Amino acid sequence: MSTSIDILVSEVGPRDGLQSIGTVMPLEAKKAWIDAEAAAGVREIEVGSFVPARLLPQLADTADVVAHARRIEGLTVAVLVPNLRGAQAAIEAGAHKITLPLSVSETHSLRNLRRNHAQVIDEARAIAAMIAALPADARPHFEGSLSTVFGCTLEGAIPDAQILRLAEALMAAGCDEVGLSDTTGYADPAAVRRMIRQVRGAVGTRAVTGIHLHNTRGLGLANALAALEEGLTTLDASLGGIGGCPFAPGASGNIVTEDLVFMLEAMGLRTGIDIDALRATRDIVRAALPDEPLYGFVADAGLPLGFRPAPSAQHHIEEVA
Amino acid sequence: MSTSIDILVSEVGPRDGLQSIGTVMPLEAKKAWIDAEAAAGVREIEVGSFVPARLLPQLADTADVVAHARRIEGLTVAVLVPNLRGAQAAIEAGAHKITLPLSVSETHSLRNLRRNHAQVIDEARAIAAMIAALPADARPHFEGSLSTVFGCTLEGAIPDAQILRLAEALMAAGCDEVGLSDTTGYADPAAVRRMIRQVRGAVGTRAVTGIHLHNTRGLGLANALAALEEGLTTLDASLGGIGGCPFAPGASGNIVTEDLVFMLEAMGLRTGIDIDALRATRDIVRAALPDEPLYGFVADAGLPLGFRPAPSAQHHIEEVA
Repeated sequence: MSTSIDILVSEVGPRDGLQSIGTVMPLEAKKAWIDAEAAAGVREIEVGSFVPARLLPQLADTADVVAHARRIEGLTVAVLVPNLRGAQAAIEAGAHKITLPLSVSETHSLRNLRRNHAQVIDEARAIAAMIAALPADARPHFEGSLSTVFGCTLEGAIPDAQILRLAEALMAAGCDEVGLSDTTGYADPAAVRRMIRQVRGAVGTRAVTGIHLHNTRGLGLANALAALEEGLTTLDASLGGIGGCPFAPGASGNIVTEDLVFMLEAMGLRTGIDIDALRATRDIVRAALPDEPLYGFVADAGLPLGFRPAPSAQHHIEEVA
Repeated sequence: MSTSIDILVSEVGPRDGLQSIGTVMPLEAKKAWIDAEAAAGVREIEVGSFVPARLLPQLADTADVVAHARRIEGLTVAVLVPNLRGAQAAIEAGAHKITLPLSVSETHSLRNLRRNHAQVIDEARAIAAMIAALPADARPHFEGSLSTVFGCTLEGAIPDAQILRLAEALMAAGCDEVGLSDTTGYADPAAVRRMIRQVRGAVGTRAVTGIHLHNTRGLGLANALAALEEGLTTLDASLGGIGGCPFAPGASGNIVTEDLVFMLEAMGLRTGIDIDALRATRDIVRAALPDEPLYGFVADAGLPLGFRPAPSAQHHIEEVA
């Protein structure tokens, strides 16, 4: 993360958003979306997932998207991978960051990835070994992400001991960090605080920096605030909350990038992102997906009269130092 | 506030929600709505406003609504009043709590109430004197509410010194407490914390217990969390966010009661409110206002699998003690 920002907002719309809708966004629209967000100041974008095209045709062009996004200076190009094969493809394509999800609910893991916990940890170990064999400057950052960590729609709450054991296993397998993911939108601010503290207690503070929140029950930004106050510095979000429908049961939209950036900048936390440019990016997504609703409040309500984003003076001082 | 709850959720939909929409809800529907919310465990409801019927025909039956709501045991019946005449009507009707708004933006005050700051303070003094002349057991609780305290759509940010001077003037005029109101949806969590601290610094911690938040820019529940963490114990909210349209510029929907109660109970904070009963109450509002959208996420997404509200064991212990 650059020293000139306080919080890294990681845009996951091109992956998590697009995988949740039926329509396939054309490659050119994906490129335009990514270009516009990067130009608005977004520093990290999860651009796709290396899964078989028959499972997620929406993301079948991920290698092409990565190749395009890599050309944008200063942008961290992130992808999701379900296994070693996906990680191989991600590395070949040139991704800077790869995330392997591990559902702490074994029922969910078996349904989603068709692998039990031990098998996912084996994949993590194989991926880490593959990365370690690369030249130092070619190694992507490798995150193991604990999904359904705030509860599972199949199993309900997952025992703390199981979560901590899996966090430790991911780090022992060679992950660089462990992420927390509220896959089901079950989190609340108290649970966010508790989970961050206990996972950090198990694997170390520096091994837990990011969280992936959904807005299924409307608490997305309150949960983000709790995560910030615990010291996390990377927050996933999706432009226009694309992919989630809050008015359908089981909806699982990500928190909305525009609203999150507004909250952070209003609080004086620098994101490096221009909110008006971000709002304009919605037009690209809307044009490419005319039948998909876009969510969020700031895009329509506009900024408060006299609104000033977080001061950038600090920025220059830090860059000089 | 009863000792058996941690946070008082004050339902303002019958006042703030209904005054924001064109349709007039029939008296019988208002009664059914209030009855259902009270039965769900809501302990305080702002049932209307004593303003001239030509200005707000939606609330012209407030005296009848107060008379009905007073019959519900354990319910605090609150109303808004713009001036001494409104307060007289509120006391005659039997309201338990009356709130006088004072817009800290004088431009907004002149436009909205056609009174400058000094004139509103004069009204507050006259209302306090009228209340003081009542027998002790007939005196309503009297709140002065600082509206546009997080900024005004006409003036932008209001100077701190002006806000503090007005808070002190309300207390000196005889108010029992000072409320904070984000009329414009401009607040962010850092501003909420700062404003609570500074107003409490001016008028005392016990004189500031409640906040009225809007969700105009999606930050409503994050702002509520910040207020909770500062120690406020009364939060206004509106069932279904009725009256606010997040997709129209200038929209000003209140935070959604159902989602707020879910957040609080999930965090282990007792509200005394049954979420499922609250969700069922939406049907009453929907039937009476079929053309008005209802907002919120929990009502449709449902509760997490295995969800448990805040434990009530403490409740019994406290009641015995």
